[in-house]
Formats: sequence, structure tokens, C-alpha cells
Amino acid sequence: MSSTRPGAAATQEQDWPAYVEDFRRAGHEVVDWIAHYLEHTRDYPVLPKVKPGDLTVALPRSAPDKGESYDAILKDFDNIILPAVTHWNHPRFMAYFACTGSAPAILAEALSAALNTNGLSWKSSPAISELEQVALGWLRQWMGLPDDYFGIIYDTASISTLHAIAAARDMADPNVRTEGARPILTLYTSQESHASVEKGAIALGIGQNNVRKIPSDAEFRLRPEALVEAIEKDLAGGKRPFCVVATVGTTSTTSVDPVSAMADIAERYGLWLHIDAAYAGAAAILPEYQHILRGAERAHSLVVNAHKWLFTPVDLSAFFTRRPEILRRAFSLIPDYLQAAGGPGALNLTASDLGVPLGRRFRALKLWFMMRYFGRERIQAILRSHIAWAKRFEQVVRSDPRFEVVAPVPFSVVCFRYKGTNEENSALMESANSTGEVFISHTVLHGQVALRLAIGNLGTTWDDVERAWELLQEKAPKSR
Amino acid sequence: MSSTRPGAAATQEQDWPAYVEDFRRAGHEVVDWIAHYLEHTRDYPVLPKVKPGDLTVALPRSAPDKGESYDAILKDFDNIILPAVTHWNHPRFMAYFACTGSAPAILAEALSAALNTNGLSWKSSPAISELEQVALGWLRQWMGLPDDYFGIIYDTASISTLHAIAAARDMADPNVRTEGARPILTLYTSQESHASVEKGAIALGIGQNNVRKIPSDAEFRLRPEALVEAIEKDLAGGKRPFCVVATVGTTSTTSVDPVSAMADIAERYGLWLHIDAAYAGAAAILPEYQHILRGAERAHSLVVNAHKWLFTPVDLSAFFTRRPEILRRAFSLIPDYLQAAGGPGALNLTASDLGVPLGRRFRALKLWFMMRYFGRERIQAILRSHIAWAKRFEQVVRSDPRFEVVAPVPFSVVCFRYKGTNEENSALMESANSTGEVFISHTVLHGQVALRLAIGNLGTTWDDVERAWELLQEKAPKSR
Repeated sequence: MSSTRPGAAATQEQDWPAYVEDFRRAGHEVVDWIAHYLEHTRDYPVLPKVKPGDLTVALPRSAPDKGESYDAILKDFDNIILPAVTHWNHPRFMAYFACTGSAPAILAEALSAALNTNGLSWKSSPAISELEQVALGWLRQWMGLPDDYFGIIYDTASISTLHAIAAARDMADPNVRTEGARPILTLYTSQESHASVEKGAIALGIGQNNVRKIPSDAEFRLRPEALVEAIEKDLAGGKRPFCVVATVGTTSTTSVDPVSAMADIAERYGLWLHIDAAYAGAAAILPEYQHILRGAERAHSLVVNAHKWLFTPVDLSAFFTRRPEILRRAFSLIPDYLQAAGGPGALNLTASDLGVPLGRRFRALKLWFMMRYFGRERIQAILRSHIAWAKRFEQVVRSDPRFEVVAPVPFSVVCFRYKGTNEENSALMESANSTGEVFISHTVLHGQVALRLAIGNLGTTWDDVERAWELLQEKAPKSR
Repeated sequence: MSSTRPGAAATQEQDWPAYVEDFRRAGHEVVDWIAHYLEHTRDYPVLPKVKPGDLTVALPRSAPDKGESYDAILKDFDNIILPAVTHWNHPRFMAYFACTGSAPAILAEALSAALNTNGLSWKSSPAISELEQVALGWLRQWMGLPDDYFGIIYDTASISTLHAIAAARDMADPNVRTEGARPILTLYTSQESHASVEKGAIALGIGQNNVRKIPSDAEFRLRPEALVEAIEKDLAGGKRPFCVVATVGTTSTTSVDPVSAMADIAERYGLWLHIDAAYAGAAAILPEYQHILRGAERAHSLVVNAHKWLFTPVDLSAFFTRRPEILRRAFSLIPDYLQAAGGPGALNLTASDLGVPLGRRFRALKLWFMMRYFGRERIQAILRSHIAWAKRFEQVVRSDPRFEVVAPVPFSVVCFRYKGTNEENSALMESANSTGEVFISHTVLHGQVALRLAIGNLGTTWDDVERAWELLQEKAPKSR
């Protein structure tokens, strides 16, 4: 039949060996490039020295008609893309939250892309379905979470939290699924909680006006009595409280909400309790920190991001829920083309039944590689170092009378400020960041700009933290 | 200060060179493994021969306390994970839709994981923000989409479609954002459209009961007069029509809805028109197929998945909208900790402002690598081959009196059936799939089980399609 083969001119058959050899050659180059990058990350400015549009104008307006060589592509990667990269994998990336693209996870991502296997259902990829359960089970054990927490991987904590709120809505009013939302459900969270809670509520049609931002105490923890007050007021006003979100490690100061007290309140009023432990949940891997999740055994769901403080490149958000059947009830829709025998239902592992996304990458692979490569003890040792360095950084900041520490330091993030104006603090941050040696971020606490130094990259050493401090001391006005 | 260095025992400093060398050695092994895999993918059964639970019981119940070697991890990858993988990158993976993890994109994914740069905002990664615009601009040109289509990358089409519907809701009723949804908005789509439309409507609080599944014609295309009828009926009933979703390449039969007629209707009633071209949009890269997107210049949004027929591993869903300001209005929330000077606002490229997810991988890199490595002409040649082979497969099916083709073949998917019972067709599919040589899927058309053969892997040749047909002929009952 080969004589009648259509499209023979474009057949890849005869080109395939060259295509693979081309990959092999370029692949070895890429591995060496990454090894060099991991060894010399500090040679790059953490924040790139580019202006908006620099990258855009450096690239052609149109894609090529003819294919190009790996040499040409990798050369442009080096010369054009790299100068515009903010180096999140840099040991002195100390903005936002801890993050690391660790070596074993990089290899897992390459393998995952090569397999390109996709977890629509168990049958569509048993490996994704089952390894996800295995790896999340391991993580659950490490964090001391109860066995009845069912795990599923989403891309980001924002998406995890959206699913938590959707499940909460379904628990409160299963008719929303069919009939649509009515603006009477109210959600509670601290004024310090992540914007994703509000954004999830907006997306789900709850409405910003039905999100109650409960005041926090002097240490940025939700005040339980204010929560009760808000719930009672809504009940009196004909609203229907349905969900409360606690944060373990808030975005600004890493404060920890009183989860047990909130669980009491959630039980009393029949609310879904979701715990956002996206960053700090990792600390529960340390026995001496497992208390931060006290009360989680009574929560309905919890999110922790492996791509934050667990050495896994973005994206891997681990979502746990004790009520998977409600999540399923909220989202299950199995169309004809997936009604495969032996598929959905097998082991109850049809992830697409548990949320919005249908296609799913093999994300569990990188979590599994990471956990095995490091092992629990090494992870614990590294987390302990990060926490110890944060405490030490807190001390050195306190030792300089020009500075003050403006929030407790429960984990690996320090919030501090120069004792001056907001403008002086912003200028100090910009000045330190513009050196390219460090990237710290800021927040606003009680109307005052505070600087945030977040420790958590695998390659960070105390010397890196010290270098950040030297820069800040150097750039700060000499006396006050 | 080194004498007082806390956590010295766990410091990674002295271990770092070994960590990098370890990566380098394992990385070269992984590259060779992938090269071998790409060369010999056909040696693997497309569908794994495992039972639910096989993988789970083969792995330890707990993660290791001590770290393990790459050798141990990669050995288990080969011996335990791989036998449970459904090989979506197999040339005879002909289920669902086209997909390929191409070589250049695999390298891009490894680099993306190594950089671990994260696109919260322009400042958080200029490279992500700008390369995303550049690569999506290239794709827009290839597809012949108008310049006023603004592009953004999400993970999956389901998430893209959710954002389209959310923007549609905001256009119809900007108050939903603050006040919450009311169950009066109604959405229209064909009975052939993807389940993600309904799922998006459920998530957003529109309600399944407010999703109108408009009947399609004999060739599975939405009937415009039935759409008008449904809209008029809803208006008369006090509902508020707000969105219509057209599909270019439906999930079952790859039929193409009458986009221009639907654009007329959308304009007449003030509806947001979203086009789901997740699979077949790629065909518009062929000049002779650009007509499939006629009317798109009057649509509000469109999704096409590079991880389907564009040789990019999952996940990369390209979402285009002509009304980014409405998407922004629906989702914008810039919290204090991201209110960085020079950041948000610069070039209007704050992607987190345009949807639910905050963290974003450097997905654009793999699209850019893929487009450059192949170039437009090679991509066109490959797409033409796939389409030609589908037409040819259609002919060979028609030539066997035991079989019938049950839907038009506009692209690279053929729907056909054995002229027997549903059970016989299901059994035939299972029988062919159980050989491990091929994976085809099925759907249900007019209550009848139909088999689907989807062509689209980069490595597929006509011989692969022919082998699938041989298996089907061999497994089908001999006479009828």
C-alpha cells in the first residue's frame, strides 16, 4: 500500500532517526546548561535588568516558515530570553515565598513531558491516578494529617481554594449545581488571607459583598469572637453562612489563624472549614511544628503547595479534602466519550470528576522524585535551617537601631522595616533589588510599608541571608 | 560569622557540587532514556496491562526517611511507573484527540522547570509575560485570527472556557462580581459541545438548568434557528441570555458549528460568543482550512489547545479574547503584596489579573521552541498528512461492507462502527485495544456506540493507521 501513501512528502518516517538524534545532542547540551545554571545561579541578577518591551522587540514579529536548529533556538534562549528571566531558583530570591526547582524534580518534568501522559481518568493514565494517590499519601503522613484526607493535585492554590469553596457551596446548597447561585451565601476569612479566597468567591458567583474579612489580632491572626459576631449578624440578616477559610502562614506575615477555635465555630454553624496552608503547611513535616495544623482533623479541606516550600517547581498544589464525595457531587459530569468500561469508577480515581480541569499533567512524578531523592530527614534538616536563619535574621535586624521587626516570625519569613517613611522603605527595597544580588518584596501592615525577606530556596545559605542584610544596611540612610 | 552559622549541619553549601554532578550524570541518562523512548515508543503497549491498584501496591506505603539515589528512583520509574503509563505519545495512540510531546517542547519543559520562574506579574517574570505575548501572537498569525485578539495561556481548555463564561457574565451583569450570581442568566451551546461548557457553568453558579443544549443537524452542527428559538423562549420567560459557545471540532465527531450565523445571533441579542476550537483550531494554520474560523473576527473569545494538535505536551491552552478589559474587570484584584512599583500595569501584562490562577509556569517557552524548531511549513505538511490519512482511513472503512462511517470527516478524526450491536462495537474496541498495539476510543451518536480513530501524533505514519485498521478487521466478526 506504500505506493498510494498520501502525504508521503511530509511523512516523518524517514526523518525520525535524525529527529531523535537531534534531540539527543541538544538534550545533552541542555542538561549541561542546567547543571551549569544550578552551579552558578548566583552569577545571574535575581531581578532582570530589562525594561518592559525589551524582550518583545528583540524577537521577530512572526514565527519562521522554515524550521530552525536547536543551536539557533538555544542561542536565543541564552541571549534574549534569559536576560528577561526573574530567577526564582536563585538562592537570593527572597521575595514572596520559598520556592525551588530542585534537580530531581527537573528530571521528572522532562520525563513527564516525554511521556505526555494525561490523567483524564484512571484508564487514561493509571500511573497518574495512582502515583498521585501514593505521593499525596506520603505527604499526608509527613505532615501528620489524618488518613481520611483524600488528596488531589491542582496547578495552583488559587484553583485549589476555588474547588474548596465550590464544595463548601455544594454542602450548603446542593441545588446550586442545577439551579444556579443565589446571593445569600456568605463566606468568612481573615483580613490577612490570600486574595485567592476573594477571587474564588467572585468566580463562583458568591460575590465580593458576601465575603466577610474578619479582623485579626495584633499578631495578624483571625479573631474568633469577631468571626462569631459576623456570622450571627449575617444569620440575623437572612444570609446563609457556608464557609470559613483559615490560613496557616498568611501571605503578608505568615501568621497562623486559630484553627481549632475556628473548627469549633465551623461545627457550631455547619460551615465548611478550608485551611490555606499553601506555604507554611510544609513546616508540619517537622514534628516540633505539627501543632500548626492542630484542628485540621476537623477541617473539610486543606491546601499545601509543593511548589512553595517543598522543592518542587511550579506547578503542584496538593489539595486534601475529608469530603471528596461532596467535591464529586459538585463537579461530576462524565460525558459519553469518557464512559469507558473499566475506566471511571475504578478505585474512585477519576480526577476530572473532582474539579474543573479535564486534562492533567503527570505532576505527581516530580513530587515523588523529590521525596525519594531527599528523604524525610534531609527535608526536615533543610526546613529547620531555613527557620533558624529567619530567626537569626530577625535578631540581626533587631540589633540595628535603624530597623524594626514588625511581625512575629513563626516560619522562614521576616517582616521588618526601616524606621522611616513608606517612601524610604520602598526606596530601600528598590535600591537593594536593583543591585541584582537579591530580590525581596514588601507588604503593607497597618498602613505601613514593610519589607519581607523570605527564606526557602534549596541553594540558600546563611551567607546569602547575610549578604541581603549587608545590602540593606548599606543602602539604608546612615542615621535616624 | 561562619562559626555562629545556625543549622550548619544541614547547610547545603558543601554538598552542592555533588548535588549538581549527581544531576548532570542522571540528566544525561534521562536524555538518553527519552531519546530511546522516542525512537522505540512502538515497543510499548499503548494501553498498559495493569489492573487498578497494581502500581499502588508495588510502592512503599511511606516515603523514605533517608534520600535515595537517582539509580534507585529511575529503576523504579522503569519497572513500576512505566508499566502503568498510558502512552499518549505513542504513534498509535488514536483515542480522544491528537497529542504529541515533541522533542523541542520536552527540552523547553526541562529548562522551564530549572528556571522555575513564575508569571504572577510582569516584574515577577518579564520573560513569561512577554514571550507569552510573542508566541501567542505568532500562533494568532498562523491561524489567521485578527490582531485584536489578546492571548493568554491557561492550563486546559476547561479552565479557558470557564474564564470565557465568567467574562461573558461580567459583560451581561457587572454587578455579579460584587453582589453574587442570580439564577437568571442563560447560556447556549450545542448538544455536541464539550462537557467543560456545562462544568464551567456549574462552577460559576450559572446552574445546569440554565444551560441550553441546542439541537444539532444531521451533521452534528448547531442549528441556528433552534438557537434563536431557545433564546426567544428564555426572553419570554424572564431569563437573561448572556453567552453562546460555538465549537469548531466537536469532541465526538469534530463537526463545525455555523460560527458566522451564531455571530449574527450573538450580535442581535448582545451575547458573548465563545469559540471552542481546542482541537481543530490548529487546522486553521492551513490556508485551505482557515474558513473554519470564519466569523471568529466577530467572536469575543476563542480557545485552541497547543497540547492537542500542535505538538506541545500538556498543558498549554491558548485563550484569546477581543475583550480583555472585560476579563480584567471580572477578575482583577491586586493585593498589597503585589502592588510593586513598575510591576502591574506595565504593558498591561499582569496575567494574574485576568483569571483565577496566580502562579503560572513558563508554558510559553515550549510553544516558542516548538514553533521555531518545526516552522510553519513543516507543521502545515504534518497537519495535511494527518487529514489526508483520515480521509484515506474513511475510504478503507467504507470499502469493508461490515463497517460504516457515521459522521463526516472534516479533520483527522474518523467516527465509524461495525454494523452490529453496541455491545459488539464495544467488544471490538476492547479487543483491538487489548492487543496493546493501538488505543482507539468511542462515543455515542444517536444512541449508537461509534468508534473514533483520531490521528495526530507527530510520530504517526500511514502504516500505523493501516495497522489499526488491520487489527479492527481481524477482530471484527467475519461476516454480517
